[in-house]
Amino acid sequence: MIGEIIAIGDELISGRTENTTSPFAARHLFAAGHEIYAMHTIGDNPPLIGEVLKRALKRVDFVVVTGGLGSTTDDLTNEAVAEALDREPTLYPEVLKRIREHLDASQQASNLEKMAWLPQGAEILNEKAKMAGYLLVHNKVPIFFLPGVPYQMRELLLEHVLPRLAGWSGNHHRVRQRIYKTFGLPESVINQRLLALERRDSVHIGYYPVNCEVHVSLTVLEKNSQAAEEKFSAADLVIRDVLGDALYGTDQDTLASVVGELLLAKGKMLCVAESCTGGMIGKRITEVAGSSTWFAGGVIAYSNHLKEILLDIDRDLLKNYGAVSEQVAIAMAARLSERTNSDISVSVTGIAGPGGGSDEKPVGTVYIGIFSNNRVTARLHHFSGDRARIRETTTCTALDTVRRILLAD
Amino acid sequence: MIGEIIAIGDELISGRTENTTSPFAARHLFAAGHEIYAMHTIGDNPPLIGEVLKRALKRVDFVVVTGGLGSTTDDLTNEAVAEALDREPTLYPEVLKRIREHLDASQQASNLEKMAWLPQGAEILNEKAKMAGYLLVHNKVPIFFLPGVPYQMRELLLEHVLPRLAGWSGNHHRVRQRIYKTFGLPESVINQRLLALERRDSVHIGYYPVNCEVHVSLTVLEKNSQAAEEKFSAADLVIRDVLGDALYGTDQDTLASVVGELLLAKGKMLCVAESCTGGMIGKRITEVAGSSTWFAGGVIAYSNHLKEILLDIDRDLLKNYGAVSEQVAIAMAARLSERTNSDISVSVTGIAGPGGGSDEKPVGTVYIGIFSNNRVTARLHHFSGDRARIRETTTCTALDTVRRILLAD
Repeated sequence: MIGEIIAIGDELISGRTENTTSPFAARHLFAAGHEIYAMHTIGDNPPLIGEVLKRALKRVDFVVVTGGLGSTTDDLTNEAVAEALDREPTLYPEVLKRIREHLDASQQASNLEKMAWLPQGAEILNEKAKMAGYLLVHNKVPIFFLPGVPYQMRELLLEHVLPRLAGWSGNHHRVRQRIYKTFGLPESVINQRLLALERRDSVHIGYYPVNCEVHVSLTVLEKNSQAAEEKFSAADLVIRDVLGDALYGTDQDTLASVVGELLLAKGKMLCVAESCTGGMIGKRITEVAGSSTWFAGGVIAYSNHLKEILLDIDRDLLKNYGAVSEQVAIAMAARLSERTNSDISVSVTGIAGPGGGSDEKPVGTVYIGIFSNNRVTARLHHFSGDRARIRETTTCTALDTVRRILLAD
Repeated sequence: MIGEIIAIGDELISGRTENTTSPFAARHLFAAGHEIYAMHTIGDNPPLIGEVLKRALKRVDFVVVTGGLGSTTDDLTNEAVAEALDREPTLYPEVLKRIREHLDASQQASNLEKMAWLPQGAEILNEKAKMAGYLLVHNKVPIFFLPGVPYQMRELLLEHVLPRLAGWSGNHHRVRQRIYKTFGLPESVINQRLLALERRDSVHIGYYPVNCEVHVSLTVLEKNSQAAEEKFSAADLVIRDVLGDALYGTDQDTLASVVGELLLAKGKMLCVAESCTGGMIGKRITEVAGSSTWFAGGVIAYSNHLKEILLDIDRDLLKNYGAVSEQVAIAMAARLSERTNSDISVSVTGIAGPGGGSDEKPVGTVYIGIFSNNRVTARLHHFSGDRARIRETTTCTALDTVRRILLAD
């Protein structure tokens, strides 16, 4: 089915808050075989809410609306929808009761009854949840209204919207999709290598730079299930061949999760010694649930003093070569593995900026050290961009360095 | 002026990539006194690009379009605009020359000439940049076309779009705006306390939950500059009074940057001992440029082994009370300050899930320890949500704990 997503909230159009709910909905709807025609972000503006919703109802098969269902005075979605679709605002006593049950003392005073007045015909998506979310079917088109709070919206979308849409109507295209995640090849090179594949029937290729990575999507749309499978397999082979070892994983994989799988398979433990990244590598790794089976932790050696105290780096080494040097990167990785007895240690030391650069070592100068199999090496990198980008690139490159050493093992 | 933002790219409507350029543009346009009517995200779909652009041209004073200007085959914005606005695609030899100058060897083969074919009448925004970006004035309405790559788009927006819009026409409302950032009060309580303020003329209040924080925006729109100033000052006083010590900062402040200012003022150094956050607190702190003057680093003590090795935590303590305990949180903070000689250490140990919970210590159980002025304490928290949310809440609470102990000092 083809749908539109409408996100509502003044905080979104003033750029105060990044809209994470629409991409989340798009990703999961797309993976479930639906197609998104357009996504709109508008303010808590009743006439515009009505206009955008009515236009969407004319051209797509379903609509997902998020935001503006809360209890504060700037939440206006329910009123706007009641007005636009001519559906009397109606008090849902069950909803009100549930909201009151979930209150904590601090909220007693506020105007929560507002959240229980819904457009007539609203069907509550989850009878047990505090924050309702509802379905309204208008001229046979389902409209799902979800809260704008990301974790509430995610839960309702996955557990209530997707199952209902799946059962809505049959007989659509068979969609096969895969995302190929790469690190180390420029987008234009990948595009050039995949041009021939793009010309094949029913095959769609997309190119998406995501921070320092490039993701490639393969989508095959076919009426016939067997034809979809065959075209998909053939294209998959070509893509894997073209991407080579820049391809680190697919779909839900992250650089950190792939590193984890390799470590787990080899029964090895990893440690990190971070200077300019200040904990980003550890953060990225521990986002992976279960990472404690292959990641021990490490040291955030941001100051020279902590490099000395926690990693036994010689003061003379720091003085003679500087904290940002091959020698110090090597010592950081080697000493950490010695101290912790971990199989692999990766270290980073660099100048993320905006200050701290010099002619000899400009902003973006980063050494990444790695200890593995009782050998330790370090490599010099020159990264570009602002502080955030240099730290991000350093983090990805450190994880990729671990991945490559495990692959070569 | 009132504008719309249109972001183009299949990667955005499939949810593969989060659209960060539109919120960035909205935030900076808003701060410059403009208002965003709507933001749209659509695929690389020429008829839809034309339709959405033409509708925007009818109802607003300016349009910002991002994405689809690149060299890959799925970049279709220029063709779509040429067609929709009836402007012959025209080769810009200067643009082509500049693109070729910026090439690296790996890109020689690809079809870069494509990027130099622009709709007739296009005016290049930055003659020196590799990635052009251009302005097209259509029926007196300026349309800015910017690349979708975030850092290129940001630069062009700040250095070329905002200045041109500022000079476009005069005589608008005087806008005064401030964002108040809070941690620890529910959104509904803040809303309740500010209801009276909302009713004042020309005063607009917005409420935005951002992860575990609530941000409140105050916007005053007045024709008269002095009236704007007076209303703004009066509202500012009320808001600061209502928010009390939950208010940690304004505008560009972050919890980490505010902690840094307090440490700097007192000449103190901070260290972190992180278990379940795995480096997130250090990451958040070191996002602040110049943080090396008040942050030394610390330990990612993810495994029990590293808690023993790097922080000298007694094996018996870990065995008797468990790693997630008041005793261990206290020992982590105290030992880290002892070892590193830092004035303040904050420690976290908890169960972020999805696994690892028990009846006694369910997922979300987190202890936060703090050493300061030679006293050490720890507090038990019960956080809810998924792994990502528990880690995020733990990180904010740890930073806020440091902030409050510095304020009480």
